[in-house]
Amino acid sequence: MAHTNNVQPTLNDIVALCKRRGFIFPSSEIYGGFAASWDYGPLGVELKNNVKQLWWRDVVTNSDNVVGMDGAITTHPRVWEASGHVEGFHDPMVDCKTCGHRFRADKLDEETCPNKPSKKVSECGGELTDVRNFNLMFKLHWGPVEDSANITYLRPETCQTIFPNFKNILTVSRMRVPFGIAQVGKSFRNEITTKSFIFRQREFEQMELEFFSHPDEAKKWFEYWLERRKKWYIGIGVREENLRMRQHDADELAHYADDCYDVEYKFPMGWSELEGIANRTNYDLTRHMEFSKKDLSYRDDITGEKYIPYVIESSAGVDRTILVLLSDAYDIDQAPNDKGEMEERLVLRFSPQVAPVSVAVFPLFKKPNLVEIARKIESDLRGPYRTMYDETGNIGKRYRRQDEIGTPLCITVDYDSLDDHAVTIRNRDSMEQVRVGIDQIHQAVADQMKSMCSSI
Amino acid sequence: MAHTNNVQPTLNDIVALCKRRGFIFPSSEIYGGFAASWDYGPLGVELKNNVKQLWWRDVVTNSDNVVGMDGAITTHPRVWEASGHVEGFHDPMVDCKTCGHRFRADKLDEETCPNKPSKKVSECGGELTDVRNFNLMFKLHWGPVEDSANITYLRPETCQTIFPNFKNILTVSRMRVPFGIAQVGKSFRNEITTKSFIFRQREFEQMELEFFSHPDEAKKWFEYWLERRKKWYIGIGVREENLRMRQHDADELAHYADDCYDVEYKFPMGWSELEGIANRTNYDLTRHMEFSKKDLSYRDDITGEKYIPYVIESSAGVDRTILVLLSDAYDIDQAPNDKGEMEERLVLRFSPQVAPVSVAVFPLFKKPNLVEIARKIESDLRGPYRTMYDETGNIGKRYRRQDEIGTPLCITVDYDSLDDHAVTIRNRDSMEQVRVGIDQIHQAVADQMKSMCSSI
Repeated sequence: MAHTNNVQPTLNDIVALCKRRGFIFPSSEIYGGFAASWDYGPLGVELKNNVKQLWWRDVVTNSDNVVGMDGAITTHPRVWEASGHVEGFHDPMVDCKTCGHRFRADKLDEETCPNKPSKKVSECGGELTDVRNFNLMFKLHWGPVEDSANITYLRPETCQTIFPNFKNILTVSRMRVPFGIAQVGKSFRNEITTKSFIFRQREFEQMELEFFSHPDEAKKWFEYWLERRKKWYIGIGVREENLRMRQHDADELAHYADDCYDVEYKFPMGWSELEGIANRTNYDLTRHMEFSKKDLSYRDDITGEKYIPYVIESSAGVDRTILVLLSDAYDIDQAPNDKGEMEERLVLRFSPQVAPVSVAVFPLFKKPNLVEIARKIESDLRGPYRTMYDETGNIGKRYRRQDEIGTPLCITVDYDSLDDHAVTIRNRDSMEQVRVGIDQIHQAVADQMKSMCSSI
Repeated sequence: MAHTNNVQPTLNDIVALCKRRGFIFPSSEIYGGFAASWDYGPLGVELKNNVKQLWWRDVVTNSDNVVGMDGAITTHPRVWEASGHVEGFHDPMVDCKTCGHRFRADKLDEETCPNKPSKKVSECGGELTDVRNFNLMFKLHWGPVEDSANITYLRPETCQTIFPNFKNILTVSRMRVPFGIAQVGKSFRNEITTKSFIFRQREFEQMELEFFSHPDEAKKWFEYWLERRKKWYIGIGVREENLRMRQHDADELAHYADDCYDVEYKFPMGWSELEGIANRTNYDLTRHMEFSKKDLSYRDDITGEKYIPYVIESSAGVDRTILVLLSDAYDIDQAPNDKGEMEERLVLRFSPQVAPVSVAVFPLFKKPNLVEIARKIESDLRGPYRTMYDETGNIGKRYRRQDEIGTPLCITVDYDSLDDHAVTIRNRDSMEQVRVGIDQIHQAVADQMKSMCSSI
């Protein structure tokens, strides 16, 4: 059963929690920050690793027909000519002759002038230049000679490092079409404007699958991955009512795409794209064939048919998935404090699969005999679970600290434990406490975790 | 017990195997490749993920006093002024006026002229320019305005994105000194010359730990991490005789370092650095304090003492660790073919912890009743193990394919399995085959895996 929450947080609520508890900090904060760049702290990196590993396990490990790869961020510049990015990956921009700032020409009704934060650019009265195109790829000089022959780019998407490897991977993996190649990694886009916390950054991480199929079967696989990707989000704990599949209109469809859906999530700032799933036809392989003069077609060794496979792409953002999980888990309810008085409680209702800490272990007091048992339990649970040990503050405070970071279960060792060899396991959501024998902890933890996972 | 091998491979042996079996390909190969840039294929990415996860589990998860983070590759340029990289991170270079190529001025006895591959630069007779310094950081224009105010750099090391977060992480993680912050991620250095396959690339991945301690305890923690890091390599299967700890001479020690050891490995091209472990003193925190005007000192809440912590750094290369594992595992011995004749066998003796595939499952013949059982066994083993299913070719060929990629165990389902509900488990190293009941597979696999892991 998916959880139901009492509140919908604002973006500021989430940013504040992330900073306070060490999920995500502004990058280079001691230097005043760096535009739209964020560092993941101790809890954030665990959450992120969980997301990436869950994606990999589902898309690669548990699929008979998908293999992984990890390509370089910096590749041959011809890749970006073939992909169309050198020529066409740009946004329209204008400069304001009055204040000197630069804006997205197609967003003048949305962007505000930094000098007049209350005014949209379209109404602030500044004189704007003509519209020019601005290429969103970051340029680099590769090697010690700074001339135009040595220019390359940071990849603006991971998928274009998959296509040139199609034939190599097909051969070494002994796969047959239909099959997919998956990749997780950083991409970079020099956005004119960035926004909404980690939603639109210039440096971000993607999880992309390029699934190669016979042209006649592309529609079938497109439907298949639409369904499967939605299930994945629900499986890692996202509430279904906050997800929707939005089909692209004909006029927003990329020229090479036959069909495309955005997986949209109801973010604090409104419904926005979390993932794109597209039927890219044979556009990419065809372009790379043209530019490389290499044959990237596929020959079916049973039917003898030779063709250029169609590609179904699933392109998800790691950072956006993190923002989804934080938004979806954020809740406030009432909980008793140490005196039994009800107080507001901030709680992250993470699915146990993604929670940065899955079990916290406390000695009720910082006494050697309790500490010893608690330490032993914590170290026994490590491995199958992500554990944390905490011995400071009163027990109510310690519960609250774990609630705020979404820890599903807390285990407390008290003086009775010395006699009954049992501990108290406390559930984050129900706040119920049960007494469990120390030799039964593994089973009890596994059972409670399971009941806290969303059903798929 | 560590394995003993019959052969020491050349770098070419390894490159050829990596290409043939899909560990690592030249990046952008269809475009003629891209200088010193490599893509990890289906097996390579699994090997790499295993290495990164084993490092994280040891250094972060299993340490009470280490937390992780994941910082942006692109940070505020002041970080690189404070770190000394803008001013001092360069190599000396010369241009050849005769052929126009550029070389490391301090390596003229080692580098060859591209026009005269048989000649070292120092003896080819070309006229060289004076020596100039070349900064090894890649420059970027951040944001849509290309002027000097918007220049930043791709990080040349991950550690400098740790130091500016020291105070933030100290606070949110409620750690006390001594404690460490660990990070895995890409770094970029615009090397004048690259070499030795994945050993020296311009884009590479690091696993770095910055461990903060009281100045008086820095030596103790330095010794501790020296010992522990060496153990880690042995624990993931590297043979101890191929590792050595080499202390830096006074004249090669960085000006800020009190002491430094390289963990060196006997690579195919000779003993070379795999990891650096250094006592960086309080240099980095002091510099970031100066440049940011923020207080990064630590106040011990028990003793009341206030000080700038010393830093012990462990800086390991992911790609170099991969090259170590491949070199160390590569072996050739004799094995019987299907006719019982002895033939040369190429085998990777990976520890089961790092092997891209841990168990392969085969039906002896492609018959529905055998296939069904084999598929079932494979899917039951997935999760705890990385599995592969293979039904093509004769059984000897299938063993050989798995040997070449270092799969520790192969399980074969034959016609007898239909009656005795048992399968054959074949061990990569001993090539022994044992008959095991299907309901005993998990235990048998776990036992064999354990015996194949190096003892720490």
